[in-house]
Amino acid sequence: MEKKGCLYEGKAKRIYETEKPEVLWVEYKDDATAFNGEKKETLLGKGRLNNEISSLIFSTLAKQGVKSHFIERLSETEQLIRRVTIIPIEVVVRNVAAGSLVKRLGFTRGETFHKPIVELYYKDDELGDPLMNEEHIQALQLATPDEIQTMKEKALAVNEQLIELFKRIDVQLIDFKLEFGRDTSGNVLLADEISPDTCRLWDIKTGESFDKDLFRFQQGNLQEGYETIFNRLGGQA
Amino acid sequence: MEKKGCLYEGKAKRIYETEKPEVLWVEYKDDATAFNGEKKETLLGKGRLNNEISSLIFSTLAKQGVKSHFIERLSETEQLIRRVTIIPIEVVVRNVAAGSLVKRLGFTRGETFHKPIVELYYKDDELGDPLMNEEHIQALQLATPDEIQTMKEKALAVNEQLIELFKRIDVQLIDFKLEFGRDTSGNVLLADEISPDTCRLWDIKTGESFDKDLFRFQQGNLQEGYETIFNRLGGQA
Repeated sequence: MEKKGCLYEGKAKRIYETEKPEVLWVEYKDDATAFNGEKKETLLGKGRLNNEISSLIFSTLAKQGVKSHFIERLSETEQLIRRVTIIPIEVVVRNVAAGSLVKRLGFTRGETFHKPIVELYYKDDELGDPLMNEEHIQALQLATPDEIQTMKEKALAVNEQLIELFKRIDVQLIDFKLEFGRDTSGNVLLADEISPDTCRLWDIKTGESFDKDLFRFQQGNLQEGYETIFNRLGGQA
Repeated sequence: MEKKGCLYEGKAKRIYETEKPEVLWVEYKDDATAFNGEKKETLLGKGRLNNEISSLIFSTLAKQGVKSHFIERLSETEQLIRRVTIIPIEVVVRNVAAGSLVKRLGFTRGETFHKPIVELYYKDDELGDPLMNEEHIQALQLATPDEIQTMKEKALAVNEQLIELFKRIDVQLIDFKLEFGRDTSGNVLLADEISPDTCRLWDIKTGESFDKDLFRFQQGNLQEGYETIFNRLGGQA
């Protein structure tokens, strides 16, 4: 496979075309951003860690029958993916209250929900990724009711599997964000990445954060936290 | 019926007990507030207009079979209501894009929706009445799934009736907010008020506002706008 022209550069990744129209080449960058790009820094090794962790997680999910855009890891910072059109909805699943939920709705940080909460956000930087309901999504024609249902069901299934995966390495899955895309046949596939950039991960015993909150709130060294997750998942740092 | 001790004073109303435990006495105030109390003014006649308009609307809805807490108009500024426990959810129905929907989600002001959008907000001044989804409501134990369903259905039924009522007086119903309460038997009843304080009402021909946006954005004289609605609804100003 050959890397061709750059198709898109986002906050954390560059995406290139390949000689196959349905296959794209992803390069993970070392840039860290938070609060809708207001806080920004380059953190050496972050791209590698997110690529390695996301590759590991998507491979594990694939073995459990969850289809995603992920094809294969190419190098420390690169992977091949299937080309999809991203649906501009961020699907957030929350098992424990943290982050914006505490601030917006007054939940107590650390409070466990009886059942996971699924939230839908409009993926729009200019608007600051606002919370939406399903009627907003239909009015904005972002997805059909069937697609919304599919995304919510897949998100809850992924949640079950990730909870187990992280529990095995003594990490509690607090919440995470998923994105989905449509392939050329219109199938809704899990896309984007699953990494400490997109999950809140707490040590099951100490409550220590191993995720982007380390960067958001300067709680500690981001790379060390991500490295801990990668090592515990069985990777070689 | 006799007015007893004051039970509650809100931004726009005072509520008193009566000699009957299940009946309360409401007094509409002339205070106008907007943006969660940040903008505040006393506008002579506002209490009278809201009481008159809300009494007229609740009476009309009652004739069409919509049960509410409203019992009867007592005077220009007073009415009797059934005692309910307010469910802390603001149910907003939108037919046309305006206000926060334009700002938050990028809809074009004046855009008509194919079907009305129902939104649920957490009635909490400290949090600034944030948007919620049904899973947040369950996690916060604000209402049961059945109650949420009931409120949404009633809100859409009221919308149909209000659209017709306002169309007859050459006014377009853009959006409105409802509140519901539980009576002593646990029935969910329409409560609070329906007035230009809680609706967006535009002249069907000119697009002129006859509602609280006159106050929010200093677009014109609030009392004149409310008086127009009251006059057109057949009241004697």
